Amino acid sequence: MLFAPVTAYCQKTGNLKVNQQRIESRIFELSKFGRDSSGKTYRVAYTKADQQGRSWFIELMKKAGLEVHIDYAGNIIGKRKGTDPSKKTIAFGSHIDMVPDGGNYDGCVGSIAALEMIETFNENNIVTTHPLEVIIFSNEEGGTNGSTMMVAPYDTAALKVVTQSGLTFVEGIKAIGGNTDSLPKAIRNKGELAAFIELHIEQGGILEKENIQIGVVEGIVGIRDWEVTIEGNANHAGTTPMNMRHDAMLAAAKFIIAVNEVITSYEGKQVGTVGKIAAMPGAYNVIPGKVVLGMEIRDLSAEKIEQLFADVEKKAAAIAAASGTKISFTQPFKPIQPALTDKTIQDKIIAAANTLGFTYKKMQSGAGHDSQEMAHIAPVGMIFVPSVGGISHSPKEFTKATDMANGANVLLQTILALDKE
Amino acid sequence: MLFAPVTAYCQKTGNLKVNQQRIESRIFELSKFGRDSSGKTYRVAYTKADQQGRSWFIELMKKAGLEVHIDYAGNIIGKRKGTDPSKKTIAFGSHIDMVPDGGNYDGCVGSIAALEMIETFNENNIVTTHPLEVIIFSNEEGGTNGSTMMVAPYDTAALKVVTQSGLTFVEGIKAIGGNTDSLPKAIRNKGELAAFIELHIEQGGILEKENIQIGVVEGIVGIRDWEVTIEGNANHAGTTPMNMRHDAMLAAAKFIIAVNEVITSYEGKQVGTVGKIAAMPGAYNVIPGKVVLGMEIRDLSAEKIEQLFADVEKKAAAIAAASGTKISFTQPFKPIQPALTDKTIQDKIIAAANTLGFTYKKMQSGAGHDSQEMAHIAPVGMIFVPSVGGISHSPKEFTKATDMANGANVLLQTILALDKE
Repeated sequence: MLFAPVTAYCQKTGNLKVNQQRIESRIFELSKFGRDSSGKTYRVAYTKADQQGRSWFIELMKKAGLEVHIDYAGNIIGKRKGTDPSKKTIAFGSHIDMVPDGGNYDGCVGSIAALEMIETFNENNIVTTHPLEVIIFSNEEGGTNGSTMMVAPYDTAALKVVTQSGLTFVEGIKAIGGNTDSLPKAIRNKGELAAFIELHIEQGGILEKENIQIGVVEGIVGIRDWEVTIEGNANHAGTTPMNMRHDAMLAAAKFIIAVNEVITSYEGKQVGTVGKIAAMPGAYNVIPGKVVLGMEIRDLSAEKIEQLFADVEKKAAAIAAASGTKISFTQPFKPIQPALTDKTIQDKIIAAANTLGFTYKKMQSGAGHDSQEMAHIAPVGMIFVPSVGGISHSPKEFTKATDMANGANVLLQTILALDKE
Repeated sequence: MLFAPVTAYCQKTGNLKVNQQRIESRIFELSKFGRDSSGKTYRVAYTKADQQGRSWFIELMKKAGLEVHIDYAGNIIGKRKGTDPSKKTIAFGSHIDMVPDGGNYDGCVGSIAALEMIETFNENNIVTTHPLEVIIFSNEEGGTNGSTMMVAPYDTAALKVVTQSGLTFVEGIKAIGGNTDSLPKAIRNKGELAAFIELHIEQGGILEKENIQIGVVEGIVGIRDWEVTIEGNANHAGTTPMNMRHDAMLAAAKFIIAVNEVITSYEGKQVGTVGKIAAMPGAYNVIPGKVVLGMEIRDLSAEKIEQLFADVEKKAAAIAAASGTKISFTQPFKPIQPALTDKTIQDKIIAAANTLGFTYKKMQSGAGHDSQEMAHIAPVGMIFVPSVGGISHSPKEFTKATDMANGANVLLQTILALDKE
């Protein structure tokens, strides 16, 4: 009879299911914060709506018995004790701030599912061995700011930058209960957490298109951006013969196509985009003398990004030489390094999906997430659920309640599996 | 001895030369109106500087004995009687307004050379058979407004449009001594003038590049503009696989290249330009869902422009189909019809160039000019002189004094040849 209690525990936890209806209704409740009469939602970090959404969430966390505090970076942290104080904390969560006129699922699904873990444990009288933490990161959409501040010293000069809310980081973080004067105290030590797991909508159309229930994230891509300047000669569009032109627009067009050719010339999931363009002087009757483009390359391998850019540079040099233009590159932002998720956690997510009978697919995250930052200090795992049409950062963003519950159940079993270690 | 006086006249007029030094110094004098301390010149039509420049010019016209009046459209007209009142007037001139921060030669060379004709005739006691008219058109740079108002009824609603000066046409024309209440009275009858001749800088680099002294303008190109809208799907630049994109920017790049291919696939002097572009939403991390381009095609033949556009449309349809985008065209402006110059006048310009020992080339004008409008009511001729580097609408615009004098001497001999008819 020695193993009877353990077996009973396993039977009990193996059958554990989240409350789909509660997840769904909370998604709708949360979506009200910041919504105006026209139906647009503006719950940008640090705004009144963000503050209200956070207060509502903190209240629910407290009702669920969590010991809640706001760290110096404005992250909401809710703790639940485990049976063994010597064990490291298992953390999970996401964010509830949104882009202007954004959707109700990005971040919110992972946040509400994290709270749902606690409620499900409470209702089933389960106390994990490891302590647990629900983390709701502040200002994810402004550039994973809350998680960045949790893993490394933050550039103090950047704190004076005015955010989308109209407040600086200093003002905004203060408005949500943080304090940038003590920001270094928000940093968690590397190795302090046993794991950080995030459930999130896919923000791409792959799972839906391939009719797959669970995405097992292998990593979050690195991002490098370049501002590309193409300089030709501005000239009269009527009086300059075709063979006497150094048309920066025409060279830019060739460059845009070259970027696409380079990216698609390799096997793999890398993506490359030219999303911005400005042509000067920008008139019907003037051949553009200067075009400035915004280019971005993303991949799970920093080396591959380097290789792709080297190929783009080579093609650019050929275009410049042939068109009598000059093409130059600068980097407007700090590169974001790729972050790989933990293989062991990937396996546990897969095992959970298998146990629950869900189809799954290993995939990369093309979007940035707080998990990317958390990977600096802890083994991380990410679970994706389908987003209808792959639409994100839009009021049209939608994930079915069953898919949210599926993801939450995978999260639940993954946490339980991690707790057994 | 019957023909002796005529022979003497011919010898006298054949040796007639303009005063190059006077032309050059007047160009510099005129350039002061509207120039600020930084060296930029803002002599936009209807502004104080334009008014000052016009007053200075009118004063010179009067000193040269012209009977000067300002018509209802604000055009300055200076008349000189001929010996035969039954003959039609030979008119010549250009404009002295400029684009913001423009150059000192566009329009000014033709205007000052027109006055120089009168001074040269005065100094050599020459009275032509035909009456002469120096015409300085108002607001050429705003869209050949003065000449347009001289040849046909003007859209009265358009008079309320605010011009570059900050004044409406109504206000601006009043400020320079016209009166839009009586605008139809500014219209000249078709056939009223024997000819209208305009000397102008080339505004292209052809004459200078080919080391040719005189351009004999065969016609002024027609212009058609299109706003081209390319609609794809805006999507996340990180999460949308390359093969699931409907990238409006990539389709736009292919379209820009297609325009260039179509234009250069035919023999001839046609030009086609994509000078404007806007990509929406226009961020590094979003695949553009919509791109709007500004395209222009110019040629001496309206039929050829039609053919070129038909080819562009065909290529656009193929690009749209292949990329899953939609490409549509609208016309933001009224097409400008091509205007051919008079063959007889072309021959007289060539004869004058030959007599004076100048190299010449038949060419089209890719830029619009008042002559284009005057062609509706009179046989027109245009003489081009080289512009260094083909630069125009820029403070760097420059034409050598010898080239200005060459052009003025060709103008002089052309007028004298026309006067013999």
